[in-house]
Amino acid sequence: MRIGLVGTGHVARALGAGWSKAGHDVVLGSRSPEERREADELKGFTVVGVGEAGAHGEVVVNATPGTASVDVLREIDAADLAGKVLVDIGVGFTENMDLSDPNYSLGEKIQAAFPEVRVVKTLATVDSVVMTAPESLEGPATIFLSGDDDAAKATTKGLLADLGWPDASQLDLGGIGTARGQEHFALLFMGVARAIGSYEFGIRVVPQRAAS
Amino acid sequence: MRIGLVGTGHVARALGAGWSKAGHDVVLGSRSPEERREADELKGFTVVGVGEAGAHGEVVVNATPGTASVDVLREIDAADLAGKVLVDIGVGFTENMDLSDPNYSLGEKIQAAFPEVRVVKTLATVDSVVMTAPESLEGPATIFLSGDDDAAKATTKGLLADLGWPDASQLDLGGIGTARGQEHFALLFMGVARAIGSYEFGIRVVPQRAAS
Repeated sequence: MRIGLVGTGHVARALGAGWSKAGHDVVLGSRSPEERREADELKGFTVVGVGEAGAHGEVVVNATPGTASVDVLREIDAADLAGKVLVDIGVGFTENMDLSDPNYSLGEKIQAAFPEVRVVKTLATVDSVVMTAPESLEGPATIFLSGDDDAAKATTKGLLADLGWPDASQLDLGGIGTARGQEHFALLFMGVARAIGSYEFGIRVVPQRAAS
Repeated sequence: MRIGLVGTGHVARALGAGWSKAGHDVVLGSRSPEERREADELKGFTVVGVGEAGAHGEVVVNATPGTASVDVLREIDAADLAGKVLVDIGVGFTENMDLSDPNYSLGEKIQAAFPEVRVVKTLATVDSVVMTAPESLEGPATIFLSGDDDAAKATTKGLLADLGWPDASQLDLGGIGTARGQEHFALLFMGVARAIGSYEFGIRVVPQRAAS
């Protein structure tokens, strides 16, 4: 599958490497591709402009800082986005970790700004290492999906499986409105990370024991 | 230990029953104790006024709706609160699940309103059944603590152990500022509850496998 990753940071690079390894045709989109292409950490990646990344991808992935995401995604031609799956990984926090849009989520904001794409929010509850190496955890963790379009979620589920998230670890929360829950988890994520001294952890939903 | 639970809802009753069973001397505080005392679901509980519950408790527990909590707690005489541990279980959401105070938490708000009490936020990430029966889950889940006072957190850890949360399941997140993470988790909680069709679940922090 052709994947256009928008962003060239930790998350974009981790996902780019993971999906390339799984056999996908991945490009990374930057606002300054000539400059970014020279960066050491981007050796081995195909770095193009944001618009080109959007045109390349059958699936477009937002891996840009949440506060900038809508602006950056507007650099993609509307015709190159229409009908596509847009996987949104960003979290809409300001630099001091205040919620920039407290009773809303970035996922909802992107869906509202680009009504013709089919937004799926996922991978917002783990860091870039765990995103692409869930097997590095002590046991299975849960990864969440939010989106209004079931076919788009099915495509995204396949891409999660390619990163090592088995179907049993994927939990579909429902419509894009549920992206708020994934994004607000960032606050608990930061607390846990400080408490255990590592960003590399997941959370697992532990259901009630079946009645015997 | 003498525990003054403020509230007479599901959470107050579950905790009251759990701590009574563990041998503590528990009263439940209501703004209308005469009326509430007659309610079927409160049979077997000692229901007193809010001020009396505050006076009774060596530990005072806030189990009232988040939007009302500060007002209700003001009914306790300042002298009856000073220096005490106040365990805060509430979540500050409005009825439509918007965050009433998005870049703040109820725990912080209570600590700011009552600077002489030692607030510990905990149990905000599970429902009342799981709070008092963590062993009903398929496997261990994590319960979080936030608070500025270490001795108050140690007392609270003992009370959590009395409810069935072993020390290994308790994670101290740090100061009361980290209560925001516990409270905002309510949004993901609601998404998961709808997805799995049950409020009765916990989440477990799954760390990275130790390097071999």
